[in-house]
Amino acid sequence: MTDHSEAARLADAVPAQRDALAQRFRQVRARSAELTTSLSAEDQGVQSMPDASPTKWHLAHTAWFFEAVVLVPHATGYRPFDARFFHLFNSYYDALGSRHPRPQRGLLTRPSLEEVHAFRRHVDAAVARFIEDASASAWTAAEPLLTLSLHHEQQHQELMLTDLLHAFSCNPLLPAYASASAPERHRAAEPLAWVPGPAGAVAIGHAGDGFAFDNEGPRHTVWLAPYELGHRLVTCGEYADFIADGGYRTPSLWLSEGWATVQAQGWQAPLYWLAPGDPRAPADHWQVFGLQGVGPLDPSAPVRHLSFYEAAAYAEWAGARLPTEAEWEAASSDARLTQLTGHAWQWTRSAYDPYPGYRPWSGAVGEYNGKFMVGQIVLRGGSLATPEGHTRPTYRNFFPPAARWQFTGVRLARDL
Amino acid sequence: MTDHSEAARLADAVPAQRDALAQRFRQVRARSAELTTSLSAEDQGVQSMPDASPTKWHLAHTAWFFEAVVLVPHATGYRPFDARFFHLFNSYYDALGSRHPRPQRGLLTRPSLEEVHAFRRHVDAAVARFIEDASASAWTAAEPLLTLSLHHEQQHQELMLTDLLHAFSCNPLLPAYASASAPERHRAAEPLAWVPGPAGAVAIGHAGDGFAFDNEGPRHTVWLAPYELGHRLVTCGEYADFIADGGYRTPSLWLSEGWATVQAQGWQAPLYWLAPGDPRAPADHWQVFGLQGVGPLDPSAPVRHLSFYEAAAYAEWAGARLPTEAEWEAASSDARLTQLTGHAWQWTRSAYDPYPGYRPWSGAVGEYNGKFMVGQIVLRGGSLATPEGHTRPTYRNFFPPAARWQFTGVRLARDL
Amino acid sequence: MTDHSEAARLADAVPAQRDALAQRFRQVRARSAELTTSLSAEDQGVQSMPDASPTKWHLAHTAWFFEAVVLVPHATGYRPFDARFFHLFNSYYDALGSRHPRPQRGLLTRPSLEEVHAFRRHVDAAVARFIEDASASAWTAAEPLLTLSLHHEQQHQELMLTDLLHAFSCNPLLPAYASASAPERHRAAEPLAWVPGPAGAVAIGHAGDGFAFDNEGPRHTVWLAPYELGHRLVTCGEYADFIADGGYRTPSLWLSEGWATVQAQGWQAPLYWLAPGDPRAPADHWQVFGLQGVGPLDPSAPVRHLSFYEAAAYAEWAGARLPTEAEWEAASSDARLTQLTGHAWQWTRSAYDPYPGYRPWSGAVGEYNGKFMVGQIVLRGGSLATPEGHTRPTYRNFFPPAARWQFTGVRLARDL
Amino acid sequence: MTDHSEAARLADAVPAQRDALAQRFRQVRARSAELTTSLSAEDQGVQSMPDASPTKWHLAHTAWFFEAVVLVPHATGYRPFDARFFHLFNSYYDALGSRHPRPQRGLLTRPSLEEVHAFRRHVDAAVARFIEDASASAWTAAEPLLTLSLHHEQQHQELMLTDLLHAFSCNPLLPAYASASAPERHRAAEPLAWVPGPAGAVAIGHAGDGFAFDNEGPRHTVWLAPYELGHRLVTCGEYADFIADGGYRTPSLWLSEGWATVQAQGWQAPLYWLAPGDPRAPADHWQVFGLQGVGPLDPSAPVRHLSFYEAAAYAEWAGARLPTEAEWEAASSDARLTQLTGHAWQWTRSAYDPYPGYRPWSGAVGEYNGKFMVGQIVLRGGSLATPEGHTRPTYRNFFPPAARWQFTGVRLARDL
Repeated sequence: MTDHSEAARLADAVPAQRDALAQRFRQVRARSAELTTSLSAEDQGVQSMPDASPTKWHLAHTAWFFEAVVLVPHATGYRPFDARFFHLFNSYYDALGSRHPRPQRGLLTRPSLEEVHAFRRHVDAAVARFIEDASASAWTAAEPLLTLSLHHEQQHQELMLTDLLHAFSCNPLLPAYASASAPERHRAAEPLAWVPGPAGAVAIGHAGDGFAFDNEGPRHTVWLAPYELGHRLVTCGEYADFIADGGYRTPSLWLSEGWATVQAQGWQAPLYWLAPGDPRAPADHWQVFGLQGVGPLDPSAPVRHLSFYEAAAYAEWAGARLPTEAEWEAASSDARLTQLTGHAWQWTRSAYDPYPGYRPWSGAVGEYNGKFMVGQIVLRGGSLATPEGHTRPTYRNFFPPAARWQFTGVRLARDL
Repeated sequence: MTDHSEAARLADAVPAQRDALAQRFRQVRARSAELTTSLSAEDQGVQSMPDASPTKWHLAHTAWFFEAVVLVPHATGYRPFDARFFHLFNSYYDALGSRHPRPQRGLLTRPSLEEVHAFRRHVDAAVARFIEDASASAWTAAEPLLTLSLHHEQQHQELMLTDLLHAFSCNPLLPAYASASAPERHRAAEPLAWVPGPAGAVAIGHAGDGFAFDNEGPRHTVWLAPYELGHRLVTCGEYADFIADGGYRTPSLWLSEGWATVQAQGWQAPLYWLAPGDPRAPADHWQVFGLQGVGPLDPSAPVRHLSFYEAAAYAEWAGARLPTEAEWEAASSDARLTQLTGHAWQWTRSAYDPYPGYRPWSGAVGEYNGKFMVGQIVLRGGSLATPEGHTRPTYRNFFPPAARWQFTGVRLARDL
Repeated sequence: MTDHSEAARLADAVPAQRDALAQRFRQVRARSAELTTSLSAEDQGVQSMPDASPTKWHLAHTAWFFEAVVLVPHATGYRPFDARFFHLFNSYYDALGSRHPRPQRGLLTRPSLEEVHAFRRHVDAAVARFIEDASASAWTAAEPLLTLSLHHEQQHQELMLTDLLHAFSCNPLLPAYASASAPERHRAAEPLAWVPGPAGAVAIGHAGDGFAFDNEGPRHTVWLAPYELGHRLVTCGEYADFIADGGYRTPSLWLSEGWATVQAQGWQAPLYWLAPGDPRAPADHWQVFGLQGVGPLDPSAPVRHLSFYEAAAYAEWAGARLPTEAEWEAASSDARLTQLTGHAWQWTRSAYDPYPGYRPWSGAVGEYNGKFMVGQIVLRGGSLATPEGHTRPTYRNFFPPAARWQFTGVRLARDL
Repeated sequence: MTDHSEAARLADAVPAQRDALAQRFRQVRARSAELTTSLSAEDQGVQSMPDASPTKWHLAHTAWFFEAVVLVPHATGYRPFDARFFHLFNSYYDALGSRHPRPQRGLLTRPSLEEVHAFRRHVDAAVARFIEDASASAWTAAEPLLTLSLHHEQQHQELMLTDLLHAFSCNPLLPAYASASAPERHRAAEPLAWVPGPAGAVAIGHAGDGFAFDNEGPRHTVWLAPYELGHRLVTCGEYADFIADGGYRTPSLWLSEGWATVQAQGWQAPLYWLAPGDPRAPADHWQVFGLQGVGPLDPSAPVRHLSFYEAAAYAEWAGARLPTEAEWEAASSDARLTQLTGHAWQWTRSAYDPYPGYRPWSGAVGEYNGKFMVGQIVLRGGSLATPEGHTRPTYRNFFPPAARWQFTGVRLARDL
């Protein structure tokens, strides 16, 4: 992950760096637990579809990641909490041995939630010890992996919420994850303004000292034709107009695969929108299910829980298009742009291909990103569920084009 | 369910009958809860396949049955615990409204297990009151349904165990439901003896005062050609010989659908048998998973967790056949026959067709049995999981021919 | 198939028997070819679903059957037409080697139809020679198999028509198999009369000299409670009343599996009924597709192309039930009953279980019937497509309960 | 498709242009028929998978395209051959009405092959008349569509071969499409040389007068980092080394989706490679099935019938990567590169995304390319089955990453 000169530089900075990392470790780990306080053990065990995982599994898998990537290879004398957990909580790392089938994660009533928390405490203690005691060489080797493991846990914090929300949406009682004491209400959205971005030869991708995933680099030049981006995200009110105008019944607006999906799945609105009269929440207007339960559609809020297909069809209907990921990144430093993060991941018109010169990290963590570079679409930005400080302008999130259970939204673009 | 003269007779017997039923009600209901004491709330929420249900769902559904069949129609002024539970816990009664999709019962983390127990207590109290206070006419109408509801709950007590065992079998940790303090060990099985049964015109089916399901009647004559039955069930040791002799690789032993299933599913042994060297319980001989966890195969124990296809193939290999349900019932009063119940339900060679003159009960409970009379095979007897006193010689259990997760076994028959 | 004394008796009768069989062989074989005269080679190659086969495949398979069952084992010096055809045209005989996957029979554009006819001529000549020249012992061994092969070919003659009709039904042009010069029109159906059948101890099943399939025996006693049968089949007009009365929208009329199938498949009428306004044959009343193309529904014609589920739901709606196969057979000698054959196979309320004492034929032909005795329903009678003289009162046809592409209909029964 | 000034220029050139187009029309149409001369009507009707179509369907669809796009909108007084063919032979144009389901194209035994040829003759005559007689304005409007229709027919000429080859591969007889009188044998392949391509700001995409599909433009600048390409395609011999080295058993070489596909499908070699000992062509070395039937693997021939997943895994194994489509196009004018076309379409590492500024053609033909721009991978070059003169360096072919039945191969690339 790092070359030798960077390693040397890191060694000098070690004491302060160790303290900082220890504190950050405690914060990130505590945050995972905090996210579950309103949930019962039953809630935390459920898996509503193969793509989603139980909360408990996320808690165990993120502990396993520290164990598999940091402690076992680098912490001398570390004793795993339970050797059988390697099989249970490996997600997709072929280099790290066998694994429990993904669609059956919800069947793991054992270990119990309590045991998983004991597992986490075991790992917490071992990592804390390692941060304090590791030899310089062990530290140099392990620190990037430790940092990666923290970013990994933050990614799962977002997934814990999206997966739980999906599970709750399958329950006719439509339970709320969080109390609606302070429901998010958006002020009337401003009229959409168009903001031109940098064109010609532009550099994108990560560079410099800070952490980034391997797929964000190397930094490289792209050539952009003139374009402009919508200054804010598309709102629920705008999207409701698309629906009212027959958007879901007009094949010419859709990519072929999107239209086939609309018909096969019977889509008529974003995921979690309840049509007027839905027996689960009868009302004479659209209702929306979310982390705070069911509430009336807020026309000013950014539309969320869209597939790429729907995002692209909406853009077509609006006489615009989706931005490429390079356009999004190049323009993202422009202060006129709002809602870059904190609301919804933004579908781009870019398939998730490797950057020129891309090489995966070496070792098992080489499977982190690179092997998914086919059949996925890049999303940029960050959502309401993205942990504070986790995302970056160079961040390349990715999901298959039909995915709707993430906090996904739309920013428009058009040629100049 | 009863004709008018029987109703009149019942009215005279009411006071003692009410007391007896109240006691029986308490016992049956308590038994359901007892069965769950070793299970966590997580364990009780899981559904491992569409055919199985979570323990919690069974607990709630059996309460719902009393509510839907007895309390709402017959107990004046009864207030349902939660109106939404009608949709959640209806199993398959079209006459009783909409229902939650069967394959998604495991997604109901709410209501919590605790709320389900509160629901059960609410129903318990209301049923107790009803037994004490019901008018004579309400009692006459409701008593048969109350009795049915108790037998219904007993059926679910067996399903709670079979479904839980299946869920645990999907967990690589292979947890034990019950401690193995007193593991069931069978004495060396006696050599198989053959016992002839009554032939010619024979009456089968339920008659008389005691409870029976509608599918057990009417009592009627059948004509049986001479036959004899094995005096005991087929053992694990005998079945292991069938496997060792290539039983699972010899198409001529199998029904066509059975052979196709063997190949499609890769069956090589009964469900829950772990082959020598299975990574979940490495050993150099067969191991068997059951309610008490994993243990070595007991050659004297009745073989269990077989499909009808396997039962029929074994019988073919053994130069015998499966008994018809009429043969089984006709011969069942012969004292030389052992293991009639208490070990395994016994596959017969009879499809689950209606008896001559069969009519389903009237009302919603008419859906209890009759509508399943196609595509199923009759099993007779009773298993280790069948509640004490629940089964009868006329009892017609039924499952599809590929089902293996029940406690199913084999008794042989042959022509004379 | 025959015991020794019968074989001896047969030997005496051989010369006349050989002549008769030679003539019958020529007739049956010629009939297969005649059935294809209105079809192009393209028509004869198509397979519209896994359960159906191309006409060409039927022509080749029936030739293969003579080759595999008669010529190769019994005709000294016989040289197969093409050794590769053994794999291509074996249907389901595990004892006779590997086979081409059933769902891919429509992909066999080679051998060509012309080559298949050459194959048939090759077999025809060899069989004719064998009939003339076989030694007495070869004849004794082979004659029953030769006779079986002819009945086998007749069964496929019916399948050629049902499979072709299904293939044509998938073509929006809805081509006619036969010209409609003399369309079948039924006189107004007589009011339904009820005819009681023999009750008590009754013998059913085949006995005597004539040919029968193994599944028709042994003859045995059954005990029948009093019953009566409808004197004729249910008509299209009567079935249209069932539809108009909401039959397909009333779950209480249906078996559970039937209702699930109705919903999953969207059934609203028998197969091949075109609803008023269907774009393939627009009209303001029901149209029916059949061998002579599309025409208006004839209310007096027997209803056809029903599943068992629909037959049973209709009977329930009509306040009746389906006959058991024993009732059907016992009553079939009563002259008051009409339409026993020549119109539609009649669904019974009997699963296809073995008769008491049933043993399959020995050798490869043992796979003919016995291995299908699970998951199927017995049909009795015969249809408009059944070859003259092929069926018998003891004949046990069978199909899965959801099958609709055969010429299947309904005769009602009720208890007395 | 063309702007107004181009239209004006075209009008001047009309007489010569009409003659040239008439001649080209005759040639292209005749070529389609020539490709079928070795095939029976049966061969031409078969569909072996949903992605492939029968030869007859290709013949009819390409005629329909002229009818739907040129004749009906532009040829005054044109009478369609059969109005029902609009439904039968529309492929995927939502703007042009309903269509027969793609997976059921093989069920259309009617119209017959003969009728389809009559349909083609009808269209041929009408197009010839139109070319001769069309008014200047009709000509200006229709000429681009006529030209498009010819290129469309050429695309289907290649598909006719790939689809037929797939159908033949499903037949255990493995018939040859073409006689092997002059089997293609490659001289020993030259050692692989690496050829650097133009880097920095490079223009790609179609520009100028000649025909191109809409997806090839607009011409635009891309920025390329330094790279080099293999001078020739990867050979069968090289690919056999990959197999022998365990390529299909090494997950680290594969994209995640690719590895899942390898396991789910049991892939062990390219499509149409027969392993040593395959019962369809027993031999002690690899055999390959192709248009000329089965023959021994030619180690010098370009490897073909690979998925994108296999191409990428091979490149990984070889220490290289696949070229991006921009690299391929930029380098393609370098004479040192061989096998650019005529052997195999070359998988690139580029998802099929729209070019900057891309707009689909207007009208129904706007559905030609644009709506497929998700989930597909770009291939460049051309194959042995690509019609002479059909392909261009800017040509963007595309297929899903798992597709193997096309003539697809591999050219390697690497960073400099």
